[in-house]
Amino acid sequence: MSDITKVALDAMGGDNAPYEIVKGAVDAVNATKDIQILLTGKEEILEETLSKFEYPKEKIQIVNATEVIETAEPPVMAIRRKKDSSISVAMNLVKKGEADAFISAGSSGAVLVGGQVLVGRIKGVERPPLAPLIPTAKGVSLLIDCGANVDARPSHLVQFAKMGSVYMEHVIGKKNPTVGIVNIGAEEEKGNALVKETFPLLKACKDINFIGSIEAREIPAGVVDVVVCEAFVGNVILKLYEGVGSTLIKKIKSGLMTSFRSKLGALLVKPTLKATLKDFDATEYGGAPLLGLNGLVVKTHGNATAKEVYNSILQCRTFKEQRINEKIRDILSAKEQETKE
Amino acid sequence: MSDITKVALDAMGGDNAPYEIVKGAVDAVNATKDIQILLTGKEEILEETLSKFEYPKEKIQIVNATEVIETAEPPVMAIRRKKDSSISVAMNLVKKGEADAFISAGSSGAVLVGGQVLVGRIKGVERPPLAPLIPTAKGVSLLIDCGANVDARPSHLVQFAKMGSVYMEHVIGKKNPTVGIVNIGAEEEKGNALVKETFPLLKACKDINFIGSIEAREIPAGVVDVVVCEAFVGNVILKLYEGVGSTLIKKIKSGLMTSFRSKLGALLVKPTLKATLKDFDATEYGGAPLLGLNGLVVKTHGNATAKEVYNSILQCRTFKEQRINEKIRDILSAKEQETKE
Repeated sequence: MSDITKVALDAMGGDNAPYEIVKGAVDAVNATKDIQILLTGKEEILEETLSKFEYPKEKIQIVNATEVIETAEPPVMAIRRKKDSSISVAMNLVKKGEADAFISAGSSGAVLVGGQVLVGRIKGVERPPLAPLIPTAKGVSLLIDCGANVDARPSHLVQFAKMGSVYMEHVIGKKNPTVGIVNIGAEEEKGNALVKETFPLLKACKDINFIGSIEAREIPAGVVDVVVCEAFVGNVILKLYEGVGSTLIKKIKSGLMTSFRSKLGALLVKPTLKATLKDFDATEYGGAPLLGLNGLVVKTHGNATAKEVYNSILQCRTFKEQRINEKIRDILSAKEQETKE
Repeated sequence: MSDITKVALDAMGGDNAPYEIVKGAVDAVNATKDIQILLTGKEEILEETLSKFEYPKEKIQIVNATEVIETAEPPVMAIRRKKDSSISVAMNLVKKGEADAFISAGSSGAVLVGGQVLVGRIKGVERPPLAPLIPTAKGVSLLIDCGANVDARPSHLVQFAKMGSVYMEHVIGKKNPTVGIVNIGAEEEKGNALVKETFPLLKACKDINFIGSIEAREIPAGVVDVVVCEAFVGNVILKLYEGVGSTLIKKIKSGLMTSFRSKLGALLVKPTLKATLKDFDATEYGGAPLLGLNGLVVKTHGNATAKEVYNSILQCRTFKEQRINEKIRDILSAKEQETKE
């Protein structure tokens, strides 16, 4: 395995493309020695954008892609038809082994579909979960799955728990991470059919640190490191996190503008308040990996700035260095052995 | 129909029972002319608590109940065995027509089970949903269902939408309330099996103001008045609302204590901050009705204080005055006629 991490980066996806994406790439190669970027997108546009920056030229290469998949396009159709899109071209680089990882701030649907169709699943992985990091009172937790796998089966959730544990331990550096399943009460007999079936399977897993059910209320407190749920619930959690946070912050800000006294106070608390809110902003923690694929696929926020792109690129390096996919292969096949015993 | 609203109030349930519950009852009869309370619980304890207050004696009556259902007890068993519990006795008052409504801050499970078993469903109601009001940027929305009906069917969600619309319009006073179904994207083809099946049914309803799918992110902004979802998702939304809010507030508060400047500012912004957070606190809005029963059943928060109990009692009066159950009967049978056409 080469010591260089090669990242195929969709330079056309997201609200701030191409400038912020390209800047993230430039920052990453300027800050490290062992990262190379393959920027996919329209050559002339990317050349012009790159010309604005100073960086070691050999570390960033443009791979021309003439098409762009729009966020509103139906993803299956888009991946099938736009073979020369910046997403498809970048994913094919991973498939052919010319890149280790893929990053995009573009269409989530296209990334999820392309990940499965173009990059392909690791043998034994039933469904690749999308697993963003979410801020908590204690740091971050991994929310797995927030992807397209709605109506998942219990065996999928067990794989999510295992893959999530590997990621949290070896990429985020949380030793022996705790795992909880999202439920409507702490008791084992509570839950819907999926959770009731999954619970004993997780309890029987010897290779994860399963601590039982957790209520959604406990997630922001950081009660577990790996939060397991099916994609519909995961999506609701992720979106509501953003929604409650931003509404509450708006209410606080407008509240502070209501009197002279509070306006004066607001001036004094502004820097601290800003730092606190930044700390609780999911975009600070880099993109969400789509786990269980032959190569790493990372989806960053649609409004990703250079900083998130930079953080995501560094995540890809750790992912490669820690041989995460080999560890996922091991933990999933370990399960099969247990079952056979 | 009598002009007096009679409320059977479980005086033994909740963290602050019996004092805060009794105080809520006293406040309600002191503030109104047309409310009577039937307090259920241990006679000697309630007599002693009541003796601390001034109020028109004929408006509050103690109905002795020798048992208490604990929160941790399995609800089905508890309702079956503890026939002389404060919950069972109060619910039977509603069943026998001696009270119009029931309120408890006790075991949610026992209230949900007792509501169905003791009070009974309105003819035509498939599942009675628990429907709390949640704070939003615009005021409040009704989240329906947060109850025990996990693994609901599309027809249940359609009934939830209709019952929720009646409640929002006639109890909360929101004219022609908008209805949205919680989904993982705004497009009609998105969602899990349940949402995909329910969407066209809601779209076909002529008697509700259905505006389509909403993402969880949009709920706190107050994008719709009636938020329809099945109980597992509803529970996650309700609990995460509390969780994100309280974690964020703790982070802000501890952030404000980090420097002299911010400490000084904190003193100035404290009253405003407190008012804003109170505004966003679900317990300010009274209890959650369990809709579709023969009589109103209201579950308040376990930590309900006199104010929430008071608000819930006043909700019961509006519920009776507005003949909500008759309106629910009408809207549900209207559906049957449509189907028959």
